[in-house]
Amino acid sequence: MDFGIETIRAAAERLEGRVRRTPLLSSPMLDELCGATVLVKAEALQLTGSFKIRGALNTLLSLTDAERAAGVLAFSTGNHGQAVAASARMTGSTATIVMPQDAPQIKVDGCRWWGAEVVFYDPATQDREVVGRELVEQRGLTLVHPYDDPRVMSGQGNVGLEIVDQLREGGHSPDAVIVPCSGGGLSSGVITAVRETYPQVAPFVVERDGYPKMARSLASGRVEKVPAVPVFLDAIGSPTVGEHTLAALARHDVTGLEVSDDQARVAMREAVRTLKLVVEPGGSAALAALIAQRQRFAGQTVVVVASGGNVDASVLAEVLAAP
Amino acid sequence: MDFGIETIRAAAERLEGRVRRTPLLSSPMLDELCGATVLVKAEALQLTGSFKIRGALNTLLSLTDAERAAGVLAFSTGNHGQAVAASARMTGSTATIVMPQDAPQIKVDGCRWWGAEVVFYDPATQDREVVGRELVEQRGLTLVHPYDDPRVMSGQGNVGLEIVDQLREGGHSPDAVIVPCSGGGLSSGVITAVRETYPQVAPFVVERDGYPKMARSLASGRVEKVPAVPVFLDAIGSPTVGEHTLAALARHDVTGLEVSDDQARVAMREAVRTLKLVVEPGGSAALAALIAQRQRFAGQTVVVVASGGNVDASVLAEVLAAP
Repeated sequence: MDFGIETIRAAAERLEGRVRRTPLLSSPMLDELCGATVLVKAEALQLTGSFKIRGALNTLLSLTDAERAAGVLAFSTGNHGQAVAASARMTGSTATIVMPQDAPQIKVDGCRWWGAEVVFYDPATQDREVVGRELVEQRGLTLVHPYDDPRVMSGQGNVGLEIVDQLREGGHSPDAVIVPCSGGGLSSGVITAVRETYPQVAPFVVERDGYPKMARSLASGRVEKVPAVPVFLDAIGSPTVGEHTLAALARHDVTGLEVSDDQARVAMREAVRTLKLVVEPGGSAALAALIAQRQRFAGQTVVVVASGGNVDASVLAEVLAAP
Repeated sequence: MDFGIETIRAAAERLEGRVRRTPLLSSPMLDELCGATVLVKAEALQLTGSFKIRGALNTLLSLTDAERAAGVLAFSTGNHGQAVAASARMTGSTATIVMPQDAPQIKVDGCRWWGAEVVFYDPATQDREVVGRELVEQRGLTLVHPYDDPRVMSGQGNVGLEIVDQLREGGHSPDAVIVPCSGGGLSSGVITAVRETYPQVAPFVVERDGYPKMARSLASGRVEKVPAVPVFLDAIGSPTVGEHTLAALARHDVTGLEVSDDQARVAMREAVRTLKLVVEPGGSAALAALIAQRQRFAGQTVVVVASGGNVDASVLAEVLAAP
């Protein structure tokens, strides 16, 4: 299977009218805080509360009728699961979602709300890919991979096409694009789409500090792994990256950034204060990197992807009450 | 001065490219909760965090050069103050903002951030209109009234024109439009604009329970007052309504609804959970009324205005932690 600007454009046609065109938000106060022109792609406002619906729905729409009728499976920390559950509902399929037992409740509830069956695993002792592949074989399901599939990556690239449209509408010329990175589906899609129109833009991926699996993979040229542990930044908690996503990002001169949990908390508070937007911990990673390393981006026009907003109310309450 | 669809359209031309076209958000989960098709006009995402910039900027742009040079004054619980402060900055004027000493800190900070001078008064012992008018005379300022001015009302009507556009784009036919009501500037503007295109839509204004000053004024045909007290729903805390706003709303068959603080808290939590949107207490009033009285709107297509998102992080944290 191919991946590139053509498959991203084909995905956009499939998704037209089915997913939301999320706004590119900005705030004079956020600009002042960062010393830059900051444009925030608000994928928290996407259907299912994250960008994941784009890749999942593109994949469901690419299956055969027989595959859709047999049902699909996803392993997910939650956002991909909700997206696959919603995509299955929207296309007349059924979904089984394999989730870590410590997944945020809002994500478990979301999968079930869309009619999916949720199967839990223990991230400390079990490999989610193994659990998922066993169920696929037992039940005759089609696996919708969370990132390492050109159909998924092409769907996520839809975010990048919208960013390009919105930059043009706003008369902006971007210097940098910063994307949270878990397995690399979103970042490969967005960076490919944005650099097609703006080849001079500097692309950044953001990972958990101390666990820069994509940055290490880009440096070594092969898929690197980090320990799978429960993390606050759950949306970027994948322990590894994909073959396809690594190959796609290797075509670009990508710089890796890292953020801490506390930097994410600052970004979540600033998103509420300046943008009135709810962003989940992992979804705040790009904004967190920008705020923490703002000297690096001073004076630039920076596009930041806020990839999701599925955070438990109790967690957001703690984050907001903290400072 | 006139007020009507023509002045609303003239305001829209003045505001073009200067304020944001905020999204009309929706959520399948919110629809399910309400048993209705719910479309939320997200004015929390507007510049300065509320719809108020539309009316304030339309007014500043309608002043003479001499009036702008002399400076403007506003009395405000905060959102109008920030809007006037920003509008003054954007048009080369200066702003003095008279605020209650118990105003939310985020609103005080917002006024100062935009370069305004903030003057506090005690809402328990002082009338904000008297305090404001004294400063106007002493300093030769132009008062920008928070609601009872056709220029302000026409600017707020811009929200309604956008709603009409977005309903058409989405292929929606609205049954009801629900708007928070303080002095009546937003509700008169929105209801006039929406009913111009959709005369069959049922218009509702929402006030604090026990203090339905607009509903009482519409019933009696004259401006009624309620006690001025510090309130959780500060954005709809005006103790009275306007002559102009009352006259405008009296042309429509408006139904008054009332919401409690606890109903607003529920709506704030649901906005975060289902829309990923931060809404302040008063800004949640319309959504709160819909959720609390959802049997009344069952099966309908309902437009709800979420008028602002300026809530202190500590207050939002308490609201989210509560249930």
